[in-house]
Parts: sequence; C-alpha cells; structure tokens
Amino acid sequence: MNDPNPAVQTDHIGLEILSGAECDSLLASNQIGRMAFVADGDVVIFPVNYRYINHTIVFRTADGTKLEVAANHRPVAFEIDGYDTDAKTGWSVLVKGIARYVMEDEEEAELAELDLRPWAPLTRVRRWVRISPEEITGRKIV
Amino acid sequence: MNDPNPAVQTDHIGLEILSGAECDSLLASNQIGRMAFVADGDVVIFPVNYRYINHTIVFRTADGTKLEVAANHRPVAFEIDGYDTDAKTGWSVLVKGIARYVMEDEEEAELAELDLRPWAPLTRVRRWVRISPEEITGRKIV
Repeated sequence: MNDPNPAVQTDHIGLEILSGAECDSLLASNQIGRMAFVADGDVVIFPVNYRYINHTIVFRTADGTKLEVAANHRPVAFEIDGYDTDAKTGWSVLVKGIARYVMEDEEEAELAELDLRPWAPLTRVRRWVRISPEEITGRKIV
Repeated sequence: MNDPNPAVQTDHIGLEILSGAECDSLLASNQIGRMAFVADGDVVIFPVNYRYINHTIVFRTADGTKLEVAANHRPVAFEIDGYDTDAKTGWSVLVKGIARYVMEDEEEAELAELDLRPWAPLTRVRRWVRISPEEITGRKIV
C-alpha cells in the first residue's frame, strides 16, 4: 500500500505516534494533567496542576493519598490530553514513572521559586511531589 | 468556627465535595474522559470519547489493551474534569467501576443508535465497552 506520509508512524488502530520531542514539547506547554495509581487495591485518578521541569513532572499536594503514594516511591501514570471537538481531533501523552515526595530542603527551595500555585487552599497544600518518567508515549488522531 | 455555607461539605484539603446529582449531571454533559487501569503491572491512562447512558459509561474501542481489560471484567477508574484557568477554579469526577465488553447483540444494537463516533478510524474501532460505576465521587475547587 502507498503511504502518503511515510515519516509518520501509526499504531494498531491508526493513531499517529508522537515523537519524544513532540511529547516533551506538549508536557512543557501544558499545566493540567492527571495522575493515576493503585490505592488500597483500587485504581484512582486525580487531576493536578503541574509543571514540567528538567524532564520531571512536579506538583504540590497535601498530606493524603497522593502524597502517600509519592512518598512510597510507587509506580504511577500521568496523562495530559487536548482536543478540538469541532475537528474531532485530539492528542494525548502518557508518562509512566515513579512518584516521590520531595524531601531535601535544597530541592524544595528550588521548586518554591516556580510559579506553581495549587488551586486548592495553599495552607493545606504544602508538599511537593516529583514524577520521574521511565517511559513517555504520545498519540494523535489525524 | 463559623462556616459561611454549612450546606457545602469539604474534604481534608478544603475542596468542595460534589453531590451525587452534580456528578451525574457532569457525567451526562461531558463527552471526553479518561480510563485508567493496571496492564501488565503498570498503571495506564487513556482518553476516551464517551457517553453516559443509564448511569453507565460507554465508549467504542478496538481490539487491544482497553478492550482486553474490559473483556476481563476488571476494575477501572474513569475521570472527567474541567477548568477555568483564569479564575483558577476547577472540578473533577472520579468513577470506580468494572469495565466490560458489550457482547449481546441486542445491547450492541441499542448502543449503535447513539451518536457516538470515535475519532480514530471507525473501521478499526468497532467494539463497545461499558463501565458500570460502583462509586462516583466529585470535587470542586471553590
């Protein structure tokens, strides 16, 4: 079969596979994502207001489930997506990695300089979590 | 302490807890969500173009990971969210449930009448998946 654009790779259902550079660019230019992980045997998903810094995902949180999973160095998934509902097109980037609670004073001071304010009341959302990606993949509907 | 609006319940970090009716309404009025589940030991998240029908979430997919998890009657999480980045407000609804592959001819015929076209090439995305919620929760940043 003739492929009109042989440089574009597609997956098993015909979605365009985004390059690593495209995924990186989308992670850097967005600020709302979702983290999923297993808590007490259930899969859960939470939205987070994040920044992409030095190829890691950072966000702020409070004590609780999200923080606990992060503190435990457990595997998580992180996803961002975007859509044009009129054109019926969209893209998504999926990150698999390990979340961890930022504990070192120096690193926390560095993060505090970011313009990253959680939308929840700041007095209760003081902790930093960082996800270090182990795999980043992206798809686009063309 | 005086609560300015005692009818509104908040969670441990001060987010407003949405009622079941509010979650239902948000599920019915949105069409893009994300499903997360465990595949080969990893947590994964995929966006889906869904409809909320008879208190269940339905979407179309192709053979592959999403379908396999559905066919296996395994627990999944499904999430929708929305934001006003200027006002720094947002909401999210999290559904925990069991996904299953729709196999009965009659049920499939009923679903086929929905205006639910996946954005990926339809020839490869022919199967229906239905998530039956076991728990629905929602939060709002106020």
